[in-house]
Amino acid sequence: MPTITLSTSKKHELIDITSQVEEIVKNSKVKEGICFIYVPHATAAVTINENADPNIQTDIIKAVNKIVLEHDNYLHDSIDNNAAAHIKSTMIGVSEAIPINDGSLQLGTWQDLFFCEFDGPRSNRKVIVKVIKQ
Amino acid sequence: MPTITLSTSKKHELIDITSQVEEIVKNSKVKEGICFIYVPHATAAVTINENADPNIQTDIIKAVNKIVLEHDNYLHDSIDNNAAAHIKSTMIGVSEAIPINDGSLQLGTWQDLFFCEFDGPRSNRKVIVKVIKQ
Amino acid sequence: MPTITLSTSKKHELIDITSQVEEIVKNSKVKEGICFIYVPHATAAVTINENADPNIQTDIIKAVNKIVLEHDNYLHDSIDNNAAAHIKSTMIGVSEAIPINDGSLQLGTWQDLFFCEFDGPRSNRKVIVKVIKQ
Repeated sequence: MPTITLSTSKKHELIDITSQVEEIVKNSKVKEGICFIYVPHATAAVTINENADPNIQTDIIKAVNKIVLEHDNYLHDSIDNNAAAHIKSTMIGVSEAIPINDGSLQLGTWQDLFFCEFDGPRSNRKVIVKVIKQ
Repeated sequence: MPTITLSTSKKHELIDITSQVEEIVKNSKVKEGICFIYVPHATAAVTINENADPNIQTDIIKAVNKIVLEHDNYLHDSIDNNAAAHIKSTMIGVSEAIPINDGSLQLGTWQDLFFCEFDGPRSNRKVIVKVIKQ
Repeated sequence: MPTITLSTSKKHELIDITSQVEEIVKNSKVKEGICFIYVPHATAAVTINENADPNIQTDIIKAVNKIVLEHDNYLHDSIDNNAAAHIKSTMIGVSEAIPINDGSLQLGTWQDLFFCEFDGPRSNRKVIVKVIKQ
């Protein structure tokens, strides 16, 4: 099962995984189908957004941190101190499905695929990629 | 690849695409499978919710605009002035997968499919629909 | 079509459905593929998060209720008084796709599958599970 392995260097970080996913799609030889992206972590997520201006990553992280308050008397903070990261994972989500047409991923002109780290830095973060033929 | 093309008329707008998606499912002749909806834009999204009361669209837009603040010193605003729309796209998401049973889309009684415009008005918005056989 | 039927006992509640979904995957005999989870309700959702510490469920509900304000002059409240539940359904989402490898669901070590009730208590809530072979 094709898997991308990542290390993250900050508490909150978006990492562009588009080229690795495109490589997996190419190697699959699937011409028409769906590419699934799955993040098997409860304090991370996956999203699709623009990377032409990398500032958007900073803006997304800033907004998510404002939407989900840090250490807001969460019960889980007394155990692991990362409840906010869990909530962010649920808000953004851990799965995406992108169509494949004529062998290529149908991301829009302004779309890239990002792994979202909400509880870094971490080594050994995983992204599972599955390609299904139509 | 079946694609729905839309024009939007407001900055924020939900557009019901259920009947067009159902038509594509019908034409696919797939009896058991999954229907994928994919929005290839970084300032739009797709969601599933009720349309029996169209006021819900207004309520969703109002809530999303309260959750994601407009022009909150985002870095991308100096380039394109639409950072909030990008963040909304990430919060709501650009992909959905709905089961097909006996040739029909398994939306619940109170569920319709909506294209979400967060940076309109725009012409030439696209929604890609892919039907996969089980 | 395999379907899980649930009753909920509170207005807001997360219910762990992992073991029922794993049973459906086992019975499908699919070794490599994707498991789709679909919630056909407009005031509920599905999410993936940790259950090793069940407090996380409480933290997620608390945070979601803070993000989406209750009775914030929503138009739909005059009809059904549950607009906030509809908005939460759109924020969290009603579909998930999890890879299957060697016959087993590829949830991460700290991931469980949850049905999210935002407008309970209700009987006869449904979760549709579809397994697609690669």
